[in-house]
Amino acid sequence: MKKIGILGTGTVGKTIGSALIKLGYEVKMGSRTSDNASALEFVQTNGSKASNGTFSEAAQFAEIIFNCTLGMASIQALELAGKNNLSGKVVIDISNPLDFSKGMPPSLSVCNLDSLGEQIQRKFPETHVVKTLNIVNCEVMVNPSKSGGDPTMFLCGNDEKAKAETVEILKQFGWNDILDLGDITNARGTEMLLPIWVRTYIATKNGYFAFKIIR
Amino acid sequence: MKKIGILGTGTVGKTIGSALIKLGYEVKMGSRTSDNASALEFVQTNGSKASNGTFSEAAQFAEIIFNCTLGMASIQALELAGKNNLSGKVVIDISNPLDFSKGMPPSLSVCNLDSLGEQIQRKFPETHVVKTLNIVNCEVMVNPSKSGGDPTMFLCGNDEKAKAETVEILKQFGWNDILDLGDITNARGTEMLLPIWVRTYIATKNGYFAFKIIR
Repeated sequence: MKKIGILGTGTVGKTIGSALIKLGYEVKMGSRTSDNASALEFVQTNGSKASNGTFSEAAQFAEIIFNCTLGMASIQALELAGKNNLSGKVVIDISNPLDFSKGMPPSLSVCNLDSLGEQIQRKFPETHVVKTLNIVNCEVMVNPSKSGGDPTMFLCGNDEKAKAETVEILKQFGWNDILDLGDITNARGTEMLLPIWVRTYIATKNGYFAFKIIR
Repeated sequence: MKKIGILGTGTVGKTIGSALIKLGYEVKMGSRTSDNASALEFVQTNGSKASNGTFSEAAQFAEIIFNCTLGMASIQALELAGKNNLSGKVVIDISNPLDFSKGMPPSLSVCNLDSLGEQIQRKFPETHVVKTLNIVNCEVMVNPSKSGGDPTMFLCGNDEKAKAETVEILKQFGWNDILDLGDITNARGTEMLLPIWVRTYIATKNGYFAFKIIR
């Protein structure tokens, strides 16, 4: 099984990391400093397949890297992970460029004619960026049936092999209805689902929903 | 039954207008000129409850007006309809600010911190703008089961009575799962579904899909 790096020690990173360990993967969680309390707790909770280190150490260790950092901090976190450490590897980008500085609900710091997924791909041209999972709460990411049905997950990226490896993990998480939109420019479409996500969350007071493309 | 005005003589206007006539409504289709060929054909096809005229005549006639013009031309069409003719009335805005000038798939001419629905509401403050239906193909608008399931329709607007009247029509079209997002600023969320709509259409080669919020 491929070795996994998780960038980000928040709820999203811990939820993705724990789910991957349950599936049998080795997971190294990376953060700015190697003594991050949340990462240490993750290692203590998840046993021998879990480890932690700096962003750079997590990227060096891994063949597949999940970007679970906040969208506004993602480029910087990936720079700390190191261009060389990410070269030739798969980065599964599940972040969103949410901007909380212009009022609530949050807006997007980039959208329409560009996207965070594209920005990351341009900044790290030797890395295979796959955008997916960013359109649901992290508990639904690793267990789509938690939404109450069989929802749709989109993915996009420029590299077919990277997308195939990502689809394998999505299937292991329980996603059955996976829609490949094509190259990374399609991250514009999936990131622009966030404004309706936040408004649906506010209207329904339920964060465990998901999108289904009925067709 | 409320009298309906349709602004726009394209496929969307004709599909909405014909469906409303089948439901028993009187419908006047408005266009720039009163001799528009598409509007005349609509009248010939739909019998005595159908009529046509200028944008202004359609707005004068109607209690509820559907904006079925292209998004980039909507403000101008509504100005031709006349501020006074729209005052105190419900405008159901089903248009999208699609911009085909910056490459395909189309982008949005306004999004994120503003929306076409809000622009219309600001321009016509005495009109009750309700944004809805813009997220599906027009045949699905008037027959949601055509998607193959029971999809979700969002609506938003500042006036509760206008939204209640809109919900009545949505139910008559067959929508069961209707989600009120709140005021007109939520049009940012529903209009920003278009980038994923066009990409899903390209990926699936099927225009008869719809969104379901599984919850």
